[in-house]
Amino acid sequence: MPVSDRDGILLGHGSGGQMSTELIEQVFLPAFRNPWLERLDDQAVMTLGSARVAFTTDAFVVTPIFFPGGDIGALAVNGTVNDLVMCGARALHLSASFILEEGFPMEDLRRIVDSMSRACAASGVSLVTGDTKVVPHGSADRIFIVTSGIGLVDDAAVIAADHARAGDRLIVSGTMGDHGMAIMAKRAELELDSEIRSDTTALGSLVDAMRGTGARVHCLRDPTRGGLATSLNELARRSHVGMIVDEGLVPVRPEVRGLCELLGLDPLYVANEGKLVAVVDRADAGRLLETMHRHPDGRDAQIIGEVVDDHPGQVMLRTGIGGTRRLDLLVGEQLPRIC
Amino acid sequence: MPVSDRDGILLGHGSGGQMSTELIEQVFLPAFRNPWLERLDDQAVMTLGSARVAFTTDAFVVTPIFFPGGDIGALAVNGTVNDLVMCGARALHLSASFILEEGFPMEDLRRIVDSMSRACAASGVSLVTGDTKVVPHGSADRIFIVTSGIGLVDDAAVIAADHARAGDRLIVSGTMGDHGMAIMAKRAELELDSEIRSDTTALGSLVDAMRGTGARVHCLRDPTRGGLATSLNELARRSHVGMIVDEGLVPVRPEVRGLCELLGLDPLYVANEGKLVAVVDRADAGRLLETMHRHPDGRDAQIIGEVVDDHPGQVMLRTGIGGTRRLDLLVGEQLPRIC
Repeated sequence: MPVSDRDGILLGHGSGGQMSTELIEQVFLPAFRNPWLERLDDQAVMTLGSARVAFTTDAFVVTPIFFPGGDIGALAVNGTVNDLVMCGARALHLSASFILEEGFPMEDLRRIVDSMSRACAASGVSLVTGDTKVVPHGSADRIFIVTSGIGLVDDAAVIAADHARAGDRLIVSGTMGDHGMAIMAKRAELELDSEIRSDTTALGSLVDAMRGTGARVHCLRDPTRGGLATSLNELARRSHVGMIVDEGLVPVRPEVRGLCELLGLDPLYVANEGKLVAVVDRADAGRLLETMHRHPDGRDAQIIGEVVDDHPGQVMLRTGIGGTRRLDLLVGEQLPRIC
Repeated sequence: MPVSDRDGILLGHGSGGQMSTELIEQVFLPAFRNPWLERLDDQAVMTLGSARVAFTTDAFVVTPIFFPGGDIGALAVNGTVNDLVMCGARALHLSASFILEEGFPMEDLRRIVDSMSRACAASGVSLVTGDTKVVPHGSADRIFIVTSGIGLVDDAAVIAADHARAGDRLIVSGTMGDHGMAIMAKRAELELDSEIRSDTTALGSLVDAMRGTGARVHCLRDPTRGGLATSLNELARRSHVGMIVDEGLVPVRPEVRGLCELLGLDPLYVANEGKLVAVVDRADAGRLLETMHRHPDGRDAQIIGEVVDDHPGQVMLRTGIGGTRRLDLLVGEQLPRIC
């Protein structure tokens, strides 16, 4: 849909799905057009001197700011580290900008900063520069954090969104929808039989293990906003290939599936913050999966489908009852402020 | 003052002055301690491969978002470019994260994005990666922008906050307080005889011209939040030197001085967004000043004082009436959301 100057920004423009794409393609890209931005990746890779440097940024506006399994601080560090890791980079240095609402409890700030510090240590990254702005009460909702990151890209890495080839296998590293449903459960103050925890974690170690196998990994994405469905669509479009996903093979925790059904949500569109989807050469997929299963962040990894020549740019879902339907980009916004 | 966990965040914690320093030293630095952050510069310089890379971030929350001489977009690009330029880096690549309030006019977003695009072109930088989050109406005040930047540091550059030496001269590149007073005048909807315009501009070209003279420039700072007084205090502390500034030599536009008097503000504490203060070897100061005067961004440059061995860490002001008083860091917050 064309973005009109007479419109206002809608929540869907921040969804990571269809409307985000329209905003990028119609507003940001025409203004800033350059070879890096045009790739529409979650990170840019530039040559600086003799180094190939990856650079990424993400804003975090999640509410609540503390939730089972994590908080806005851990999310901000892990999210930016993961955007670097997904292009085959080693994450090295982060910046953090804080926008704080006047009156925000110092105690909560310390707790968030400590969580960021632990997340940095876990990934071996240094937070090297930052900024803090405070706005009057009512001008922002408590705390927003923007992290940017730089990493070094190993020359051997050839992981990119347009590298999927027909025959490749699709692997997810674990259960889908945990982060989004943890936030929703906390927000609604639902009393569940078993607590749903955010999966927020940094994926550098898992990706190192995967790359250590020598398996030909063609694409990597962390399916955050917009979920698995949106990430797969982006990869299919960028690589001009089709994809077929077997719904029954996508791992989803029973409690996540249950809450999704209750709220009328599809777990394939729900945000993850510690999972990846990999597009892998068919011949290497089995071996890679074994390695992933031995890693704590890949225990529930699963081959969920394959890349095909048919219907380029589209992802088809084989449903449990034997039918097939198109799995499109997220349209609108399911879950505002999920990350 | 010790930051207590029982406190809430105050506007002064985002002022760039004394309370910002306390927050950094007592909350951020203990959590993230590393050699880059410890320098407390406006940017970090790291070695990546064979390249020396400068990295910086800034959050922009200015209100109003459009003002005489600029807007939040130009400010976000120029501010981040300037933080790179001040360490002797060539600014190359920017990221931008947008936090938008639901309902924000698309027309305003386009206007801001176009302004950012022009600012990028003027500085020869590419905006290579970004993120957009949208929060529900009332959860943020219209638009916040966080820009991060990376640049390459010329090996010959030895510009650093701890390089000031007794005998050095202090030079400002132009009039002080224009940006802050432009914002205040607009905010108060004051009808002034002559409009005060923000000085927002990128200083790469001026710094190139300055460095082209071969003058020994020891320190550079852009006196933004907290103004000239705060920047000089930071340099004096970092270099363990004293400074003496002659109040009568500091260039201030009459209309800025008038508005400051009206509002009870000191122009030496008011934010600038297109000015620099340089600490320069005494023998080179005159020659450097001549070159600055020939550059459009340095026409009003002035030697305003000198570096001394006495009272290390302190800046003294020789006042118009012949007295001397200490010019301290900004305490509290004069002008919330000035950038």
